Amino acid sequence: MEVAGSFSRLSSPRPVSFSVTNCAKYPHPNPTKTNLSFRNSGYAPVSASVERSSGSNVAVHLDSKFETILDSVKWDSKGLAVAIAQNIDTGSILMQGFANRDALAKTISSRKATFYSRSRSSLWTKGETSMNFINVHDVFLDCDRDSIIYLGKPDGPTCHTGAETCYYTSVYDILEGSKEDKEERLAKTTLYSLEATISKRKEEIETLPNGKPSWTKKLLLNQELLCSKVREEAGELIQTLLDNEDKDRTASEMADLLYHSMVLLNLKDVSMEEVLEVLRKRFSQSGVEEKNSRKKN
Amino acid sequence: MEVAGSFSRLSSPRPVSFSVTNCAKYPHPNPTKTNLSFRNSGYAPVSASVERSSGSNVAVHLDSKFETILDSVKWDSKGLAVAIAQNIDTGSILMQGFANRDALAKTISSRKATFYSRSRSSLWTKGETSMNFINVHDVFLDCDRDSIIYLGKPDGPTCHTGAETCYYTSVYDILEGSKEDKEERLAKTTLYSLEATISKRKEEIETLPNGKPSWTKKLLLNQELLCSKVREEAGELIQTLLDNEDKDRTASEMADLLYHSMVLLNLKDVSMEEVLEVLRKRFSQSGVEEKNSRKKN
Repeated sequence: MEVAGSFSRLSSPRPVSFSVTNCAKYPHPNPTKTNLSFRNSGYAPVSASVERSSGSNVAVHLDSKFETILDSVKWDSKGLAVAIAQNIDTGSILMQGFANRDALAKTISSRKATFYSRSRSSLWTKGETSMNFINVHDVFLDCDRDSIIYLGKPDGPTCHTGAETCYYTSVYDILEGSKEDKEERLAKTTLYSLEATISKRKEEIETLPNGKPSWTKKLLLNQELLCSKVREEAGELIQTLLDNEDKDRTASEMADLLYHSMVLLNLKDVSMEEVLEVLRKRFSQSGVEEKNSRKKN
Repeated sequence: MEVAGSFSRLSSPRPVSFSVTNCAKYPHPNPTKTNLSFRNSGYAPVSASVERSSGSNVAVHLDSKFETILDSVKWDSKGLAVAIAQNIDTGSILMQGFANRDALAKTISSRKATFYSRSRSSLWTKGETSMNFINVHDVFLDCDRDSIIYLGKPDGPTCHTGAETCYYTSVYDILEGSKEDKEERLAKTTLYSLEATISKRKEEIETLPNGKPSWTKKLLLNQELLCSKVREEAGELIQTLLDNEDKDRTASEMADLLYHSMVLLNLKDVSMEEVLEVLRKRFSQSGVEEKNSRKKN
């Protein structure tokens, strides 16, 4: 069955427009029509648009908010703040750069992660050369207003080396002298480290058939066992609710279910990122769509 | 049942020591015994330790690697690089600060996220006042070597405001004039946004019993329905493997299973972070433990 709900601000990124012709509902479907107030940039100031639009209080109001946000950032002595691009589905930190006022304004309006290049002294939108844009779904400022998160979905690898993210050098790997994947182990959080471990076991089966045995390999080699385990773990998770077992038991059974399901995903060549993308899109459906979806079931 | 495997570098953080008495296996169980080469700091240089230890090639080798890492960072004109603290389980960006050479060295050795305060011109370890340390499991450098991730587990809220992270101000919320949770919506990735949405539905049941109906609320109010759905979704996920259905179908069924399981977690007051912590600890077991664990089953 299909499930649905409503996620706030987790839908596909919509470019923002403050042009007077589209001021009432600022997220604009056509990014090329963006008309923003970029101070010190080549863009026409919004005030001019506002002047042409008698009685367009909405535009004035939105512009005022927009300027307030840009003004609220504590730009450093060079007019910059740290900007971190993060994958909205996996949480991976993709890259870190710097934004000036124009870069932040352009990111908010175009929904494409844009930075200020300190070496070239110019704005650059990630992907303008590689076409691997980072499609921004949300922008967050920190408590001190001097650090920015661009929460978005990358079109492809972010690093200029072709790596998924720019962070693939572990200090502890170097210190431990680990030769294996020393320069290629991406910074991964728990779920994706587990996913990588499962993938590694699959590779070992193919490359080292007589290598160390493991439960994961056993599951990968025995579909019947794997399916019975997924079913069993779902049953045990349910039982913790029905039997009012303690929280630790529920967390443990959910961990089991997640792990075994992820082994199944590996066999189907499906990544957790793909699953999360489905969830994000599903939960960004409107209430009406949700209702219709439920009616179908 | 319990499952086990092996995660590389995802165990509990172990402080690093380069003292000659503990050079063979540098991760040291006692952080107070740390003896590192901190250039320009109050620490005794490692070279002194090495001199006292005839034939301690391991120590020399490790120190050399350590210095090489610190030297490899492209410190800016003020001797700083951006340092981002990220929750190893959820992927949340907790805070962003700056590190100088000493701060990075101290973080690597103590396994506590340490920064350089530009306003106070001194090192500070997050948690030294609040006791909410960030326990560092791994440290990553980016491709340009001027940006650092401290991948760790926080002891408590990271922000000085008491918020879980410092990023709780959404630019689009402000622009859209959303009053609801305007200043309190943390930057969350898909899984945790879904978790927050489920929690919100639970609250709505309690505070707005006649509010908008939703599938999530229906599940929260009907344990029998919820349990049958979790069981059903597990079965449908399995079926995609057995029937060799396409990848999209598997991703969709896994999304269903994950969502329904998370509704169950909500009823048991268990967070996904707790589940991921279980997975991380389980998969950091040694091979011996793994084998013993499997024997028990």
